[in-house]
Amino acid sequence: MPRRSDCPISNALDFVGDKWSLLILRDLIFFNKHSYLEFLNSPEKMATNILSSRLEKLEKDGLIAKRVDPNDRRKKVYELTPAGKDMLPIMLEMIVWSSKYDPNIDTPKKLIKRAKNDRENLIRELLARIEGEQN
Amino acid sequence: MPRRSDCPISNALDFVGDKWSLLILRDLIFFNKHSYLEFLNSPEKMATNILSSRLEKLEKDGLIAKRVDPNDRRKKVYELTPAGKDMLPIMLEMIVWSSKYDPNIDTPKKLIKRAKNDRENLIRELLARIEGEQN
Repeated sequence: MPRRSDCPISNALDFVGDKWSLLILRDLIFFNKHSYLEFLNSPEKMATNILSSRLEKLEKDGLIAKRVDPNDRRKKVYELTPAGKDMLPIMLEMIVWSSKYDPNIDTPKKLIKRAKNDRENLIRELLARIEGEQN
Repeated sequence: MPRRSDCPISNALDFVGDKWSLLILRDLIFFNKHSYLEFLNSPEKMATNILSSRLEKLEKDGLIAKRVDPNDRRKKVYELTPAGKDMLPIMLEMIVWSSKYDPNIDTPKKLIKRAKNDRENLIRELLARIEGEQN
């Protein structure tokens, strides 16, 4: 990807500076969703053309990988690569931010508390859960 | 803002799910930039119409506030609100991610090290610096 600047924030945004890409990663990281149809049925109601183009870009950028569904060889499933999994801390901070500035948002209080007080272990646990789901 | 879902990640993305908005916040948080012209001259070369619309949205959403430049009363400067400042941890994680997945990116090694080992103090220091600059 052509780089717009040498700034590391700008660089990260070249990969995920688009809300739809981040919602797909959210579905993979937090909701154990792996298929096109599962992403499509998420509450934000992504349009099919947007979903397809974002999946393609995320795959090309190396954040997700497509493979044959081990349960149904006619289907494809998407999985997080290590670079995709490592987006987890960014999203965790988004959850913390939202819970602070929009108290009506439905965030498990325990998650927020752990994100503040037991962050490293929480991230380790969430990553381990993802690993377990992908195998 | 109409909410697309009750998800806290989706909610955060309604505010900053756009790379240009986040680049403006980056300029305010990390580069002590405060004016329209300073944002315009950032290396990513934002178009004027995009910059104007994003500044307007960020102000409307309560992430930045506009005030008269204390050094030149004919000019306006932008400042971070508490909600804008609290985007810092999200960006810090973006810096960490980029430094891991694009080693050519020019990130101060010391910053990355502290983001991993001394995170809370680093965030506290960066926030204190912003406070100092805004006063």
